[in-house]
Amino acid sequence: LQSLSAYNDFYTSIGHMTDLLYTEKDLVTSLKDYIKAEENKLEQIKQWADKLDSLSAKAIQDPEGFLGHPVNAFKLMKRLNTEWGDLESLVLSDTTDGFISNLTIQRQHFPTDEDQTGAAKALLRLQDTYRLDANTISTGDLPGVKHKSLMTVEDCYELGKIAYSDVDYYHTELWMAQALRQLDQGEESTLDKVTLLDYLSYSIYQQGEIQRALDFTKQLLKLDPEHQRAKGNLKYFEFQLEKQRKADEDAGEKGEE
Amino acid sequence: LQSLSAYNDFYTSIGHMTDLLYTEKDLVTSLKDYIKAEENKLEQIKQWADKLDSLSAKAIQDPEGFLGHPVNAFKLMKRLNTEWGDLESLVLSDTTDGFISNLTIQRQHFPTDEDQTGAAKALLRLQDTYRLDANTISTGDLPGVKHKSLMTVEDCYELGKIAYSDVDYYHTELWMAQALRQLDQGEESTLDKVTLLDYLSYSIYQQGEIQRALDFTKQLLKLDPEHQRAKGNLKYFEFQLEKQRKADEDAGEKGEE
Repeated sequence: LQSLSAYNDFYTSIGHMTDLLYTEKDLVTSLKDYIKAEENKLEQIKQWADKLDSLSAKAIQDPEGFLGHPVNAFKLMKRLNTEWGDLESLVLSDTTDGFISNLTIQRQHFPTDEDQTGAAKALLRLQDTYRLDANTISTGDLPGVKHKSLMTVEDCYELGKIAYSDVDYYHTELWMAQALRQLDQGEESTLDKVTLLDYLSYSIYQQGEIQRALDFTKQLLKLDPEHQRAKGNLKYFEFQLEKQRKADEDAGEKGEE
Repeated sequence: LQSLSAYNDFYTSIGHMTDLLYTEKDLVTSLKDYIKAEENKLEQIKQWADKLDSLSAKAIQDPEGFLGHPVNAFKLMKRLNTEWGDLESLVLSDTTDGFISNLTIQRQHFPTDEDQTGAAKALLRLQDTYRLDANTISTGDLPGVKHKSLMTVEDCYELGKIAYSDVDYYHTELWMAQALRQLDQGEESTLDKVTLLDYLSYSIYQQGEIQRALDFTKQLLKLDPEHQRAKGNLKYFEFQLEKQRKADEDAGEKGEE
């Protein structure tokens, strides 16, 4: 499988892509430093909240008795006049700076939308060349590659959308169907079936299979009965099928004459 | 113990102070909402970091082999071109807003520096009236109060400082000594002994006990040998003591005459 050559055309060099892997590793380190700093900050805030929480619960039970203790009165003044302000400063302290500036610096070397689209199209070409189905690619069962890599629902959807933008309804169908399959198999995703079914039925319609397009539109409307475009499509597909059926009947009658 | 009357003069009313207890309770609730939101945000970021961390470790082991898989190449492009940006938005998303605006609104009803000083002075007057030592007050062993309340090292220091600002070296000494005692007993604090010893020795000197002031200055210099003011004081106190000793000798000789 000569996969390397497949994306030579969309990104300068394999050397440059290797650099990006190291950049990403640095960013992860920087991100983990941020996480540590934020956890530490949050731990201090939680300790304060817990202390105040139990103090407050005690005070509220008997406010006058509580404030009758002059130390409590003094400490309440001190907390409100100075300590809550200190806590505010802690809450507002910025822990993101190191990570964000690191990301900003590295971003100038990042691939662009064009590179992402290029990589997607290279993958689609590879799929055709080696006649691989979407499921084989998505589950990482590519022949001849050492590093198995799974595609998520989002990855499949992204590929489908890129094909769609390219007026390539054949690959749109394959990858929206794959995204849907993975969603049906229980994969967690922020994507919903309605979005996928919308692309799927439209790309099938564009390939002339009105009955199948209608079936998926009906599936979509079961999930979202008020989906405006799907409601329109349902009528249109049914009208087209009816027209086709009549044309077939007429052709049949003519044949019988 | 008529403690209520002791702070009537520094804060409008006990009713107002009771309101502040409820305000504080609301702020704690609002703070806990912030903590929950921030923990949730941080959890998402950690999941991303963990995913990227193991992916990166795998990729770095064999960059060319890894990138030889066209799905990996596509996913790397997608991550760098879109997903890191999404993560950046998440990192920069503001979870503090609700709590901070709540605090800002409530702050207009908060006590001022004057109120805090007033509460402190009321406590010092109470100490004199009932002849209570600092340790009794700080450990909450006040007679006749139901709600035992402990003072921290910081609370004691704060009282001492307020006395100091009032040129009240007697109470400065009592409360700095109490802060030091609690620190020596192992209480956790951000305050250091050097700061406390500095106030303590100065307030003792101001009360005319040069030998004791010298002893505490020596303790301070053991902890921080380069402390400039303490180094100056050491010489000055020793000079004063020497002068006193000579004056006493002279008086003794005169007495013998």
